[in-house]
Amino acid sequence: MNGNRFGRLFQVTTFGESHGEAMGCTISGCPAGLELSEEDIQEDLDRRKPGQSMITTSRGEPDDVSIKSGIQDGYTTGTPIGLVIQNKDARSGKYEPFITAPRPSHGDFTYSAKFGTRNWGGGGRSSARETVNWVAAGAIAKKLLAREGIELKAHVNQIGDVEAPDVSFEEIKEYSEENDVRCAHPETAAEMQELIEEYQEEGDSIGGSIYFEAQGVPVGLGAPRFDSLSARLGQAMMAVPATTAFEFGLGREAREWTGKERNDDWEFDEEGNPTPVENDHGGIQGGISSGEPIYGEVTLHAPTSIPKSQQTADWETGELKEEKVIGRHDPVLPPRGVPVVEAMLALTLVDFMLLSGRLNPDRVDDQPGEYDTDYHPSNPQNE
Amino acid sequence: MNGNRFGRLFQVTTFGESHGEAMGCTISGCPAGLELSEEDIQEDLDRRKPGQSMITTSRGEPDDVSIKSGIQDGYTTGTPIGLVIQNKDARSGKYEPFITAPRPSHGDFTYSAKFGTRNWGGGGRSSARETVNWVAAGAIAKKLLAREGIELKAHVNQIGDVEAPDVSFEEIKEYSEENDVRCAHPETAAEMQELIEEYQEEGDSIGGSIYFEAQGVPVGLGAPRFDSLSARLGQAMMAVPATTAFEFGLGREAREWTGKERNDDWEFDEEGNPTPVENDHGGIQGGISSGEPIYGEVTLHAPTSIPKSQQTADWETGELKEEKVIGRHDPVLPPRGVPVVEAMLALTLVDFMLLSGRLNPDRVDDQPGEYDTDYHPSNPQNE
Amino acid sequence: MNGNRFGRLFQVTTFGESHGEAMGCTISGCPAGLELSEEDIQEDLDRRKPGQSMITTSRGEPDDVSIKSGIQDGYTTGTPIGLVIQNKDARSGKYEPFITAPRPSHGDFTYSAKFGTRNWGGGGRSSARETVNWVAAGAIAKKLLAREGIELKAHVNQIGDVEAPDVSFEEIKEYSEENDVRCAHPETAAEMQELIEEYQEEGDSIGGSIYFEAQGVPVGLGAPRFDSLSARLGQAMMAVPATTAFEFGLGREAREWTGKERNDDWEFDEEGNPTPVENDHGGIQGGISSGEPIYGEVTLHAPTSIPKSQQTADWETGELKEEKVIGRHDPVLPPRGVPVVEAMLALTLVDFMLLSGRLNPDRVDDQPGEYDTDYHPSNPQNE
Amino acid sequence: MNGNRFGRLFQVTTFGESHGEAMGCTISGCPAGLELSEEDIQEDLDRRKPGQSMITTSRGEPDDVSIKSGIQDGYTTGTPIGLVIQNKDARSGKYEPFITAPRPSHGDFTYSAKFGTRNWGGGGRSSARETVNWVAAGAIAKKLLAREGIELKAHVNQIGDVEAPDVSFEEIKEYSEENDVRCAHPETAAEMQELIEEYQEEGDSIGGSIYFEAQGVPVGLGAPRFDSLSARLGQAMMAVPATTAFEFGLGREAREWTGKERNDDWEFDEEGNPTPVENDHGGIQGGISSGEPIYGEVTLHAPTSIPKSQQTADWETGELKEEKVIGRHDPVLPPRGVPVVEAMLALTLVDFMLLSGRLNPDRVDDQPGEYDTDYHPSNPQNE
Repeated sequence: MNGNRFGRLFQVTTFGESHGEAMGCTISGCPAGLELSEEDIQEDLDRRKPGQSMITTSRGEPDDVSIKSGIQDGYTTGTPIGLVIQNKDARSGKYEPFITAPRPSHGDFTYSAKFGTRNWGGGGRSSARETVNWVAAGAIAKKLLAREGIELKAHVNQIGDVEAPDVSFEEIKEYSEENDVRCAHPETAAEMQELIEEYQEEGDSIGGSIYFEAQGVPVGLGAPRFDSLSARLGQAMMAVPATTAFEFGLGREAREWTGKERNDDWEFDEEGNPTPVENDHGGIQGGISSGEPIYGEVTLHAPTSIPKSQQTADWETGELKEEKVIGRHDPVLPPRGVPVVEAMLALTLVDFMLLSGRLNPDRVDDQPGEYDTDYHPSNPQNE
Repeated sequence: MNGNRFGRLFQVTTFGESHGEAMGCTISGCPAGLELSEEDIQEDLDRRKPGQSMITTSRGEPDDVSIKSGIQDGYTTGTPIGLVIQNKDARSGKYEPFITAPRPSHGDFTYSAKFGTRNWGGGGRSSARETVNWVAAGAIAKKLLAREGIELKAHVNQIGDVEAPDVSFEEIKEYSEENDVRCAHPETAAEMQELIEEYQEEGDSIGGSIYFEAQGVPVGLGAPRFDSLSARLGQAMMAVPATTAFEFGLGREAREWTGKERNDDWEFDEEGNPTPVENDHGGIQGGISSGEPIYGEVTLHAPTSIPKSQQTADWETGELKEEKVIGRHDPVLPPRGVPVVEAMLALTLVDFMLLSGRLNPDRVDDQPGEYDTDYHPSNPQNE
Repeated sequence: MNGNRFGRLFQVTTFGESHGEAMGCTISGCPAGLELSEEDIQEDLDRRKPGQSMITTSRGEPDDVSIKSGIQDGYTTGTPIGLVIQNKDARSGKYEPFITAPRPSHGDFTYSAKFGTRNWGGGGRSSARETVNWVAAGAIAKKLLAREGIELKAHVNQIGDVEAPDVSFEEIKEYSEENDVRCAHPETAAEMQELIEEYQEEGDSIGGSIYFEAQGVPVGLGAPRFDSLSARLGQAMMAVPATTAFEFGLGREAREWTGKERNDDWEFDEEGNPTPVENDHGGIQGGISSGEPIYGEVTLHAPTSIPKSQQTADWETGELKEEKVIGRHDPVLPPRGVPVVEAMLALTLVDFMLLSGRLNPDRVDDQPGEYDTDYHPSNPQNE
Repeated sequence: MNGNRFGRLFQVTTFGESHGEAMGCTISGCPAGLELSEEDIQEDLDRRKPGQSMITTSRGEPDDVSIKSGIQDGYTTGTPIGLVIQNKDARSGKYEPFITAPRPSHGDFTYSAKFGTRNWGGGGRSSARETVNWVAAGAIAKKLLAREGIELKAHVNQIGDVEAPDVSFEEIKEYSEENDVRCAHPETAAEMQELIEEYQEEGDSIGGSIYFEAQGVPVGLGAPRFDSLSARLGQAMMAVPATTAFEFGLGREAREWTGKERNDDWEFDEEGNPTPVENDHGGIQGGISSGEPIYGEVTLHAPTSIPKSQQTADWETGELKEEKVIGRHDPVLPPRGVPVVEAMLALTLVDFMLLSGRLNPDRVDDQPGEYDTDYHPSNPQNE
């Protein structure tokens, strides 16, 4: 409703601005009995962290997460998990030329017009820094999904006009983290890196896209029509900062395919259940997961904050002026966007796992309704 | 949550299956004092209606809407509006080969697997017949938006590999309803028609896409991050049956643009407010409407029900079989999808108009909080 | 949000006004595979029906329910259940003196002030006729709960100053439907009847209260803090028209008890699980069900529409006037309120059964996640 | 849904356990431009604080609130407000006898049974310590309401069998904070204090109730039926820890009143609008605010944690045992419950002010839809 909450049963509620004191989120709906530590979360945060390579902003944020509640003796208690991440390297000085003049195509103008206030420090709430919360929550969702045999991964499949060839899920898992661009195809990754540095040097930035895939998703997730798996993925992915396009399966290309070409015939699997011969449908049929891998793509436009001179309109002076956005900004978004897209995918799937009753909302270890007062992960006697 | 409700403040709740007794929806959150008749709704229903041309299913449904509540003396009362549309031409016989075997790439299998039941009549709830409810609700949303100076329209911009050139909003309004394909570019419309008939003759179907645009949308709609205007449009459009891709602004192409190329410089408008020189951002900046036209595109895959022979797996007999989907089906979806896309756009926008306080949730005529006991549109004395 | 929806996973969305064409509701979130017929629903509707005795309004409404969707071959399909109930005996003539003057303590003024419109026919949406929808939806909830071994029942425990002695759950089930007042204590019922007729004769009305109890509720329902079982019961019961008080367990009396007196010691049950020695806590501890019977009480004020002369203020003429509310009204509410309170209790409990994973949201017959394509209650082959 | 969120447009999301590292909440939906400091919040926190008098727990918590986001240069920015309150004086040792045996009538058993985990430290999430979050959020709500001319206040009207006479709203404001019991009638307050100390000395505790009142509430708040003002107040108040009863207006007593007695006749106010002669309806008619003061009562049972010996069942040893709850506990709840009840009242009202469009969701200073890029409370140039 207010933009800072995602999920129906697995709910993430966030706060924080780019140059505020801290970022944070509250996760509610995580079942009890999940072993969870700050390290589990930190791993993904480090993948999203600024300053991790030459092609990311140089802002130095350790992004250390602190768990404030919801855990006892290393296990979730089923009650809300409060997370806080301090902002340590906020420097607003650089933004002064833009305090009374909006940066081109940034959220500056729309936020100021909406709220009548200029949260000028690094774009305040409109900054992609917010996604640190998503990645933290997503790491918990991933841990829950892994228990259910659901695995997911993303990688950068295009930067500018440099496009990666199709790669397998195994290749994505094996290679995507081995280069700064997070492209699972090493040769293409090198080309992308070159292209990015080129634009970076001339003070410009470039767009790109991310391919995502989830395997092991059970049949039956999704509540057509308005809450279909594709509709909720659409919301999740279009919420990712700078996203201008979302697709799954054949996506935009599907419009050039005939029904006969795109339809996937049925055969039987080992257990004798119907299973599609191919997966042109991208793992979703009639808005519900089919049991096949779910795959799709998210397009992120080029970062709007660039050191190149651009025209802006100063509402204090009433004058037009040419300004450069000095500061520490990414020349390209997909490399750091990979863990963000994975997080939104995980948050969407875990929510449907709970909504479909496939995950016990109270605790991960037992059947719903059963309870066992002997079982106490947080009971000192157990140690 | 359960898939049959859309909207936060302007809520549409639907029911109905393809071959059930009736379709229907309840609209709550529509302010009082809006003049509304069944005719207002019927107009859009007729645009979506089956059997309207040679390139739509021949199922004969008048789709007459009946308003059951929420109106008195021709004005909305601010209370829920109940709509019912009878199903008059349901014939299920044709589906029998597929009662125990799923149609390829249709929702048959996933629905049966999820609910453990085979709602075999015309696909039951998974049928696009459901969208009759969306269009009915959307017609009310459009009327509310028109009062606020918001106009919206869609047209078919591609079928198969036949793509329409860019057209203006005025052209869309003028030409899109003048041909069966609903493409605002007459020459292209003719080509599309030809292509569709070709596939239709050989018992196949074809995909396509719809371009939409909204003008007059005020600055400030959207609640970043998860409820940004783009995120909620993403959910709305990805819920449209057969949709595989959604984009706004430059969409997927944005990945090949640099920041300098895509960024829209600022100038001043007549009132001296900052306004972007161009609209490559598609009317949304930082997830919030910028005051510029909002435009985007939705891709619909080819209809899955085709008379061509396809392989399916019969779970009763445990045997594979070749079957044709006999019945009355559309050879292409965008022409009838146009009013559906418009409806989802209207429902999304009117919801944000209420959420942002730009529309008075109690009644359309006054300022929030003011009340005037003299004003009674439904008072017989007024007649 | 808009007042016509109840429930989070088991959602009821209603429409209809007292003198409109029809009442109706859509139930979404009801699992597939539940055997359901109109008769199942009708039974409870008949208990709420007007004109059923001398101490109810004489308005003659058969209240026949018609199921429009969500059922195939006698079983729920897991998709939304659309219900419609026609209004057959609406006569608005009697209300004319109150078209421009509000009835004392009725919703006339607040509705007109809020919506700027006078839905004068029988109070429109503010009429308790709306509860016909709740009872219809509640009947489905009761059927689901019965499968889980949850039984619930209410009866009238006080009218005016005539109070019934405590009765057992078995007595409530056995006797409450045997008299027009719906009091499970026959002697008291007779006194109540007398008292009601007395007030009825002198053109006045009287208040009363309803006791409710649910047995077989499993341990663990409720999501403290804001969604505790007691909080959601509070919302549900305070929504019942004319309710001015809600309590559970010792209720208001608890303020005079000490901790030692009220606390229920623990012992072991047969299975060796802790179980409270008494049930002064009313089946809810820390906002979560304890496994003990849940009991409480709802107070309904006297009907506001009475034939006695009262002063009102005419906003057209600007004059005060003395008017009697002619029409067909109940002299007392609890007797017809019993099925309404039961419905709200059932709707609240079934929602928590789904939220806690104790009820499979997809289908009633299987474990979540398991699916079995052989099972098709709606498959003609089964017949 | 998960129990840690309250509100639809003004949303409070909380985390924290009694003996965890910190408590905290996120407020979203607070309009921009509200002057807000930690002091504004601290004032109410100090009224709820433990150790403030001899009749409260001796646990020493400063309850200092820290604002992490949503504020710039002393004004709200319209983005989520993150609050954190450290837990400084948690001592769990005392609870050890109850690690494997539930305290009578406490949430120990139900929480353990639901989550399969024993969050034994001070009752973990089930502790009333959670209400520190509610009071913090409520303080912000009160500030918003005050701008709209809405004032609210509560006081203790009964402890055990000591009942206070009726007092005026002015008396409540003047006297309720002048004694430790927070009863606005000094003589009665003294009696209550005596009674409490008596029970305290004998190691027992006692129940009581709180009267609340709100003035200046505009006509038209509330969305009948399920979201009526009374229904949402019912949820809000029944969520308060230890609450067993809620009522408004005549409450439970209404069942002994006739329609003629209870109905409030209409007259005209200065502006010539209809206004009720009396306020037996408690400021709510047909579920919508009438413009009259809203008043009601909440009953809180005696604290369950008492030093008196009680029987419990040890699920580890399988044995019954007699145990005293050693620790730092309140002998009575209403005195500290007063700010909690006020907070829930404020949160409920501010939510309806937003839902009814009476409060601009974007910013407090302007009309919805208007925007003024000159206005920047957070613009350094303004300083």
